[in-house]
Amino acid sequence: TDVKKIAVLGGDGIGPEVVGEALKVLKKTEELFGYQFETEHGLFGGIAIDEKGTPLPQETLELCQSADAVLLGAVGGPKWDNNSKELRPETGLLGIRKALGLFSNIRPANVFDCLKEASTLKPEVLEGTDLIVVRELTGGIYFGEKFRREGENGQEAVDTCVYNVVEIERIVRQAFDIAMTRGKRLASVDKANVLETSRLWREVVIRVAEEYPEVELEHVLVDNCAMQLLRRPSSFDVIVTENMFGDILSDEAAMLTGSIGMLSSASLGEGSFGLYEPVHGSAPDIAGQGISNPIATILSVALMFRLTFGYHDAAQAIEDAVKEVLDAGHRTGDIATDKSKAIGTTAMGDLIVAAM
Amino acid sequence: TDVKKIAVLGGDGIGPEVVGEALKVLKKTEELFGYQFETEHGLFGGIAIDEKGTPLPQETLELCQSADAVLLGAVGGPKWDNNSKELRPETGLLGIRKALGLFSNIRPANVFDCLKEASTLKPEVLEGTDLIVVRELTGGIYFGEKFRREGENGQEAVDTCVYNVVEIERIVRQAFDIAMTRGKRLASVDKANVLETSRLWREVVIRVAEEYPEVELEHVLVDNCAMQLLRRPSSFDVIVTENMFGDILSDEAAMLTGSIGMLSSASLGEGSFGLYEPVHGSAPDIAGQGISNPIATILSVALMFRLTFGYHDAAQAIEDAVKEVLDAGHRTGDIATDKSKAIGTTAMGDLIVAAM
Ligand SMILES: CC(C)[C@H](C(=O)O)[C@@H](O)C(=O)O
Ligand SMILES: CC(C)[C@H](C(=O)O)[C@@H](O)C(=O)O
Repeated sequence: TDVKKIAVLGGDGIGPEVVGEALKVLKKTEELFGYQFETEHGLFGGIAIDEKGTPLPQETLELCQSADAVLLGAVGGPKWDNNSKELRPETGLLGIRKALGLFSNIRPANVFDCLKEASTLKPEVLEGTDLIVVRELTGGIYFGEKFRREGENGQEAVDTCVYNVVEIERIVRQAFDIAMTRGKRLASVDKANVLETSRLWREVVIRVAEEYPEVELEHVLVDNCAMQLLRRPSSFDVIVTENMFGDILSDEAAMLTGSIGMLSSASLGEGSFGLYEPVHGSAPDIAGQGISNPIATILSVALMFRLTFGYHDAAQAIEDAVKEVLDAGHRTGDIATDKSKAIGTTAMGDLIVAAM
Repeated sequence: TDVKKIAVLGGDGIGPEVVGEALKVLKKTEELFGYQFETEHGLFGGIAIDEKGTPLPQETLELCQSADAVLLGAVGGPKWDNNSKELRPETGLLGIRKALGLFSNIRPANVFDCLKEASTLKPEVLEGTDLIVVRELTGGIYFGEKFRREGENGQEAVDTCVYNVVEIERIVRQAFDIAMTRGKRLASVDKANVLETSRLWREVVIRVAEEYPEVELEHVLVDNCAMQLLRRPSSFDVIVTENMFGDILSDEAAMLTGSIGMLSSASLGEGSFGLYEPVHGSAPDIAGQGISNPIATILSVALMFRLTFGYHDAAQAIEDAVKEVLDAGHRTGDIATDKSKAIGTTAMGDLIVAAM
């Protein structure tokens, strides 16, 4: 029996409600395609802090480790913002990435035709934009030593950014592999004119590139990339970069599509295991009102099917259903031009299930 | 006699030609307002590498130290891109900032009415955008210890990001001061959910904010700021942030205005001394063709008049002249809609001088 086990972490804010709709889609897939899933819920983020005193309880971690994939809603909210470091939802997020060895964050930023108008960029600039940011997720300044000390000028704080050849190589190779399945263009983003880690990064990229003669490679400085994403977004295919730069650039890329309520992401390690989550956050301001957009989370399930399970038929069915519902004019509030006609979270989920 | 000494560093690429036009404007100011300037040229950047074997020769540094202000064109180009660190133009730039104690980089990003169309953002989104990025310029990961070492996983590279309370306080105070002269809104950008330096940064900002009760303060995470700049650019007034984030965000902000050929910047230290330069780079691809846009450099002179000399009348005259020439429809190639009607670098400079 090939039952796939999925750890489900609803998290905070709108997390549980959007995950709820994604689970309906999962169920429908079982009916339609005969795949079998076993889902088990775990506490994670703020809710885990409230109920277990830690954002990443041991049993949640074990649940994830025993699963084939993780579906995550979102974590965080003002309630926990002023907590000490160990009691913050983000600490759980960083902890789970590290503990599960998820060194690669993959964020497609594409434009949904029917949402072109939602972008603040001109439609003609956006035309054809379909890029993927591959972000290193378990290294760099996020995980280097951090501390305070007394210096000559009072207290000082230190963060350390470290990268080794192995860490760089595996993420870069993955980015090249992805580029090979797409437009065969890779932009490697660094700050090699200033940072030692970036110089090592660039050396490794140049070396790995020899294995991919078909891929057109460009090195882009991070500041320049922040500009080029605005000037010529459609010229990018795959962008690969280190953790901190990836955090900033993937958000910029997501926002410029105008489709941020629709974008999914995958965090991957060595094997097929992956954690899937919408790009948008926990949106505490609209949580519990039943108005959030479940599409990004539903598309995260499709991404899970493609990247972890290889269920391309089911992934396609989900993606087609989303397209059909949007083409029919249905919109949640965040993407509606006419807010008065907006539908709710469950209505959107139901429509997508029906369209499948 | 109140003769102001200006060190002039043309630099590389289009640097010397745009600086040449700015010097014409300087001369015209002498005639019109009776101010007196003594200018002295120094070698800096790639040209200094070629002629002196170092991007920042000692005599250039001494020239700057003896001056009241520095006017810089731009540095860098493919010719020096593969040089070792000590022989790269950027190293000169970092060196001059540190040696002159220029801890603050001020980059206004405003939209020139006549150039609204040049932005890739929709005009209605851009409407009213007029912000300043205040970037810390002599600390952080740019200047922390950097090295390579052998680790378990082969070679590793390390960069260190360090900030002390004094460094943060002086830049933050300056940003609050600037906000007081403008819209009284300050966005402090950090990554306090991950970085120790950001947590210290935020603590200092909160403490200094008590001295500025009139300023409306918001803390924005750097990834979110990269998004908000796209979503609501006109809602920002002053943005203050550390060196690396400022590098990325100021370029993003500059690009979204569509006016990057027009933007000037100031790098300031403790007193009135400052280094002024256009935001755009050395554009080696168009250097020597006489087609570059001198306006950003000319406006850098106006900024110098305002911030270092307090010559507001002359600054105003320059800014008005630029506006007049643009309103009359004159354009260099980079900002022309009809490229066939574009005028050259010296023609643009001459028109601005005449309009003064
Ligand atoms: C919440 C935060 C720690 C996290 C990050 O910076 O990685 C988030 O911004 C993200 O991109 O997933
Ligand atoms: C050339 C480079 C070192 C420099 C920087 O990163 O500070 C540049 O990008 C800038 O913003 O002035």
